[in-house]
Amino acid sequence: MNADRLEGKLAPDVKRRLIAVVGEERFLDSLNERYVYSYDATPIFQAMPDAVIMPQTTAEVSEILKIANEHRIPVTTRGSGTNLAAGTVPTAGGIVLNMQRFNRIVEIDRENLTVTVEPGVVTADLHQAVEAEGLFYPPDPGSMRISTVGGNVAQCAGGMRGLKYGVTKDYLMGLEYVLPSGEVLRAGGKNVKDVAGYDMTRLLAGSEGTLAVITQLTLKLLPLPEAKRTMAAYYASLGDAARTVERVIAAKIIPATMEFLDQATMRVVDEFAKLGLPTGMKAMLLIEQDGPEEWVERDIERIAEIAKEEGAVQVRVAQTPEEGANLLAARRAALSALSRLRPTTILEDATVPRSRLAEMVAEIERIAEKYDVQICTFGHAGDGNLHPTCLTDERNKEELARVEQAFEEIFLAALRLGGTISGEHGIGLAKRDYLPLQVGEGGIALMKAIKEAFDPNHIMNPGKMFANSARRRVVIKQ
Amino acid sequence: MNADRLEGKLAPDVKRRLIAVVGEERFLDSLNERYVYSYDATPIFQAMPDAVIMPQTTAEVSEILKIANEHRIPVTTRGSGTNLAAGTVPTAGGIVLNMQRFNRIVEIDRENLTVTVEPGVVTADLHQAVEAEGLFYPPDPGSMRISTVGGNVAQCAGGMRGLKYGVTKDYLMGLEYVLPSGEVLRAGGKNVKDVAGYDMTRLLAGSEGTLAVITQLTLKLLPLPEAKRTMAAYYASLGDAARTVERVIAAKIIPATMEFLDQATMRVVDEFAKLGLPTGMKAMLLIEQDGPEEWVERDIERIAEIAKEEGAVQVRVAQTPEEGANLLAARRAALSALSRLRPTTILEDATVPRSRLAEMVAEIERIAEKYDVQICTFGHAGDGNLHPTCLTDERNKEELARVEQAFEEIFLAALRLGGTISGEHGIGLAKRDYLPLQVGEGGIALMKAIKEAFDPNHIMNPGKMFANSARRRVVIKQ
Repeated sequence: MNADRLEGKLAPDVKRRLIAVVGEERFLDSLNERYVYSYDATPIFQAMPDAVIMPQTTAEVSEILKIANEHRIPVTTRGSGTNLAAGTVPTAGGIVLNMQRFNRIVEIDRENLTVTVEPGVVTADLHQAVEAEGLFYPPDPGSMRISTVGGNVAQCAGGMRGLKYGVTKDYLMGLEYVLPSGEVLRAGGKNVKDVAGYDMTRLLAGSEGTLAVITQLTLKLLPLPEAKRTMAAYYASLGDAARTVERVIAAKIIPATMEFLDQATMRVVDEFAKLGLPTGMKAMLLIEQDGPEEWVERDIERIAEIAKEEGAVQVRVAQTPEEGANLLAARRAALSALSRLRPTTILEDATVPRSRLAEMVAEIERIAEKYDVQICTFGHAGDGNLHPTCLTDERNKEELARVEQAFEEIFLAALRLGGTISGEHGIGLAKRDYLPLQVGEGGIALMKAIKEAFDPNHIMNPGKMFANSARRRVVIKQ
Repeated sequence: MNADRLEGKLAPDVKRRLIAVVGEERFLDSLNERYVYSYDATPIFQAMPDAVIMPQTTAEVSEILKIANEHRIPVTTRGSGTNLAAGTVPTAGGIVLNMQRFNRIVEIDRENLTVTVEPGVVTADLHQAVEAEGLFYPPDPGSMRISTVGGNVAQCAGGMRGLKYGVTKDYLMGLEYVLPSGEVLRAGGKNVKDVAGYDMTRLLAGSEGTLAVITQLTLKLLPLPEAKRTMAAYYASLGDAARTVERVIAAKIIPATMEFLDQATMRVVDEFAKLGLPTGMKAMLLIEQDGPEEWVERDIERIAEIAKEEGAVQVRVAQTPEEGANLLAARRAALSALSRLRPTTILEDATVPRSRLAEMVAEIERIAEKYDVQICTFGHAGDGNLHPTCLTDERNKEELARVEQAFEEIFLAALRLGGTISGEHGIGLAKRDYLPLQVGEGGIALMKAIKEAFDPNHIMNPGKMFANSARRRVVIKQ
């Protein structure tokens, strides 16, 4: 291994200038440290950064970006790296900007129902802080105990409450952000209504670190719902489960959560967590409603009736919060359970309009069989956001090729059904090649032009979302 | 008046090509026809277009834009022209693209809770169509009986239900739009979750026709609330009214509507509509809650209690829907009543975070007195979106200068209180000069660069939102 590998490729004067901004302690470029930031939660993808910098203030971020911009050094901004689309893998090398020191909850504003935070705050900590005040921040991505709010915004994370409460962008009201030029800008604020110019908050939400670095966020809060109730329904047929979902919506009930597990997932989860699930069933739905006590009661009763009418073999309504948590445990354990089975777990998020759910699940089953790969499917039935999850082994190149073909066919099926290649994970590097199928070459050209408006030198997370950099990946083979 | 004025300034071959696209009947360029499209609902601003074109299909829009782009002809897209920021006044001349023939409700999708419409559909017609199916499209701008959905999206219109339900952009899921190049693109769709690339739907919402022409929209629907209840509270002090608003929110109640009228507005409205309002009072609040029957009941009771505790002199809870409508009549009549008093009515929408409401109303009163102008204030107390409305006479240049100074000071006061220069009307031409105060010169530069990404030749509504065209206005003096 040569010296370049050991210390990264930053020129000595650039390194000196960067250290002058943050100090030696927050500039990391040993091989070990760089290795730690060479991957995120996405399997298969990996690339070494040249340095990892941990800024603490907006002014530091501005200075770092000025230097990076001047020297055309790629910058990959990152929180906890729970990304599932290789969006935070530093594929072009350069600097990883680790934002975890931006971890202050700046203000909970009870009068305006907003919370202002720095991007490195962990999502679950935000939940806890606002819930202690009787307030509610609905987005609840699966990674919420580890993921940061900044990462959630950059990826426009979803979660189990998407159907009723929407996704991260629906809660983003204000931003402080730094352009690659080092300029610090603000957009939005605490105003419920604000139409002063283009909506930069919503453009930055889901921009995957390709436009700017977010240094502060103001988020909308809701009053914490008074009550919550959970139920599970088990089905001998997938169609019955899908029809239940449709009939609940048609009955004008919008549950907070409507989750789905297929038989394969149920079996794996039950083996892992010993929940006593009826694994002979083809599908299960987990439904949660929140709101005023009596309303929740009434909705859950009606949903249980609909489930029975649509052929649910077994319906269980939790009588206590503990029982509710137990029911949900099956869903929460899904990814952990699945990822124990084989060395590589690829969690996808092909998404379709809710009405196409059953068709999509059937397509996934057909495709898995066609390519002889193991795919378990679970996900957010209420909003059509499925997680077909493939259990494979990346060291088996022949199998991996079949897995990739299967996922390509799954993405095409989602698009054919009016869906999207990504409901909540983002495009990153993992789905970059599929984005043109969804938005067209014209859509890509327009997005690239928007990126140029922010980042004319293409330093911000280059190569993510669409190819825009000629730099090569530096990969350490395992 | 010269011939150029009479027929517009389009070159004969350009005119021939445009007529070849839409036919003689939908190409209007007589002086009268052009005059009709030389203004919108904004007082004072006026400018003559060279032609008015009424396309019927996306293909026609595409062809028209190609021609306009080739010849650098400004294009002002327009629905009903209810805009209040001079956003649809064709200040650079060129073509007015009248989208009112795009008036089909394409599909109400009960399973996915979406409606797909063409942009020329009138907002109230959309309400009626979806409510007939038990569904609900919340945005309700004051102009909804005349305004079009496309215009609402272009301006990101708000309305009375903003506090609980958000604004137009919160309901925009999918778009078909045409770039100035003539290229037809689609963004979003019926997926509740969709993170495939930058969020073009939210960027186009509120872009005021400066980026592209929207030719079809998919909007999110909710179940129609079961019940609705209205109440009014009258106060001897403005502070008591503002505190009621704050305490209701602090009690974790989010009413569908929380409207405010100051004493001056109450007096004018009562004179106009003979509602028997207690015009000795300093302020009134109009509050509406919707949702499940028993919940609405409970919320309204609690709000009435809070109002009394905070010193409301009189509280009336409507016992029937008719009585509720009567109470709301005061608010709905406000603009009509005010606009009868003097020749020119300037309706503004300076907006502050809800907690600064009382301060902002006091500021407006102080400023009106300072400049000796008549300003009545009413608006959406729940979301801090005020409508200070100046009654003046544009022919009195000396008074008009004072009015402009007063509004400038109002905008600055809103910004000082963490507010915005526009909550729901947009920037257009009327507030263009104030936008840099809010978003900074850096913010303006970035927005201009984004506009360039869509519209490199600056043909789309040039000069709106920010100055970006050197073309002169053609104004007919009245």
